[in-house]
Amino acid sequence: MSANTELQWKGYAVHDTKEWDQFKVVDFKPKQFEDKDVDIKIEYCGVCGSDIHTITGGWGDVHLPLITGHEITGHVVRVGPKVTEFKVGDRVGVGAQVGSCYDCKRCKGGSENYCHKAIHTYNSLYPDGTVSQGGYATAIRANEQFVFRIPAELPLEQASPMMCAGITVYSPLKTNGAGPGKSVGVIGIGGLGHFALQFAKALGSDRVVAFSHSENKKDDAFALGATDFVNTGDKNWVKDWSDTLDIILCTVDVSHHIPLSDIFATLKVHGRCIMVALPDDALPGINAFDMTTSGVLLGGSHIGSKAEIVEMLELAVKKGVKSYIQMLPMKEAGKAVQGVKSGKIRYRYVLKVDI
Amino acid sequence: MSANTELQWKGYAVHDTKEWDQFKVVDFKPKQFEDKDVDIKIEYCGVCGSDIHTITGGWGDVHLPLITGHEITGHVVRVGPKVTEFKVGDRVGVGAQVGSCYDCKRCKGGSENYCHKAIHTYNSLYPDGTVSQGGYATAIRANEQFVFRIPAELPLEQASPMMCAGITVYSPLKTNGAGPGKSVGVIGIGGLGHFALQFAKALGSDRVVAFSHSENKKDDAFALGATDFVNTGDKNWVKDWSDTLDIILCTVDVSHHIPLSDIFATLKVHGRCIMVALPDDALPGINAFDMTTSGVLLGGSHIGSKAEIVEMLELAVKKGVKSYIQMLPMKEAGKAVQGVKSGKIRYRYVLKVDI
Repeated sequence: MSANTELQWKGYAVHDTKEWDQFKVVDFKPKQFEDKDVDIKIEYCGVCGSDIHTITGGWGDVHLPLITGHEITGHVVRVGPKVTEFKVGDRVGVGAQVGSCYDCKRCKGGSENYCHKAIHTYNSLYPDGTVSQGGYATAIRANEQFVFRIPAELPLEQASPMMCAGITVYSPLKTNGAGPGKSVGVIGIGGLGHFALQFAKALGSDRVVAFSHSENKKDDAFALGATDFVNTGDKNWVKDWSDTLDIILCTVDVSHHIPLSDIFATLKVHGRCIMVALPDDALPGINAFDMTTSGVLLGGSHIGSKAEIVEMLELAVKKGVKSYIQMLPMKEAGKAVQGVKSGKIRYRYVLKVDI
Repeated sequence: MSANTELQWKGYAVHDTKEWDQFKVVDFKPKQFEDKDVDIKIEYCGVCGSDIHTITGGWGDVHLPLITGHEITGHVVRVGPKVTEFKVGDRVGVGAQVGSCYDCKRCKGGSENYCHKAIHTYNSLYPDGTVSQGGYATAIRANEQFVFRIPAELPLEQASPMMCAGITVYSPLKTNGAGPGKSVGVIGIGGLGHFALQFAKALGSDRVVAFSHSENKKDDAFALGATDFVNTGDKNWVKDWSDTLDIILCTVDVSHHIPLSDIFATLKVHGRCIMVALPDDALPGINAFDMTTSGVLLGGSHIGSKAEIVEMLELAVKKGVKSYIQMLPMKEAGKAVQGVKSGKIRYRYVLKVDI
């Protein structure tokens, strides 16, 4: 445990939701070290839409000052006496969750990502009262259940965005049956969508249809594995794609874009639309008839379990799934969150620790 | 085809949505007789909530005067030259659909109830311009695809409410996996709910939980097969039933009752809530987070296919599923629709033809 003495606990924090792109370096105190905890020296952290929803106050109360970031990779520098999976030096990642109750039927049944007492990587309260702090930082402490070994073939900066964006789309694709014989639609080609296209393809789906509101990302869509590209700015897209898809992953905020009824119209009987974007506002009102026409389902999904994350990383290596990243030094976190908010980034910023 | 000469085409019609409980006998002309059509002398017709949504104008435009009713049973009196399934004298039923395109992938794939060109039993336009007229009448004409043989063990008046209410709950229960190992919730004990409890039990579900807003129907719920009864007027019901159900059928208009977030809270991870009520208004706004907490799905369903209806009728006979009915002469249709609208009936009116 000698490495611990070298570990700094510093990070880039937002101090005011009105100044959500102003990050200042702060010292912070991690939660109390417990027997199953792992301390990680952070190398990289991806910038997720959740970070922006949080620091702007869009998702509600924020414990300020707050260090966001939950697409973390780095090296293990300290392990608790009851840690069995990791040793100092291991290449690991941490996603959007750092704790749970470890005892409920969800935790025990392999759905720990749905534990009612989940502790999110930042802006959550640990039982000891500590506010969890994220990955725009030098280090993070997490129970080993929420630490994932990064395969040797995967560079850490490549793995970072998979810790949240990757698993957020992989889990619902897998759960809802993406694979051979299935046609999968992905609405929005961004941080989530660029993984969704790749994982839908990697899982062996017959057809992978990219939906975007302009032609700008058409070439990227095909490069990412799409078999078809649909410009939702075209007049007839709903009619043209009626009754064609088994599963749709919606990665954009529909409350300001496409009516849900149009999305539902592209689904086959009993098709499913899974919302992986989490807009600040309520979804637009749904008329029950919209879901009745084809007996469709609208669903949610929340990151993924450890088993799914391990499986995703293996598949990423096997099928060559790539994170399309733009690297910035961590001091440019402000530029990164602006770029995410304006939708400019193709497709994920990764911050490199520079403290 | 000799019986045809005896057949009258008369029915009880509403002439004004403002006078939706005023029925007057009218003569009407059925659609042109085609080779696969079956003419049925109606004996009974159940009174469905859809009838009230339609005649009050709640679901939109009405072709007046209109004869509603789509829980029809009677005897075949005429068959077209290409009818293969039925002969004159057969005991049959007709539900909420009398036609489709017969040619699309939904029709050919056994999902004819989701055909985009479905012709509803009343208030739909046939290609020849005829408005379809329902079962508060002496007779109905339908393509044999939408005519169902009633098992000999099932009295016609018992089978009538199964033609819509029964299949409306049976189909989503089956599709969404109700059966051994599953816990099923049914919200609302009425025309739909009283069948949902029975069919959930008949399918072998481990647990069948009835949700009602008072204790009034508690005894009925247990008699109908519920293993548990939940009074949603109680303060702690959401907490007490958190994370317990695989499937919920919501048979009531949630837009005025229980928040969807409360319903979702009772679901297990990836549980499903299927809305089988079709309120006039949009559903209450859903926050994506409500579905994310447990990765749940909200879905719709529309009646059922012929294969499902045949299967349902067999199961009803085998497991003794009963329609709880109150019989009225058809001239009292006005009293019946009032009774349905006010929620007084336990649990289905069946009108006996008296013209």
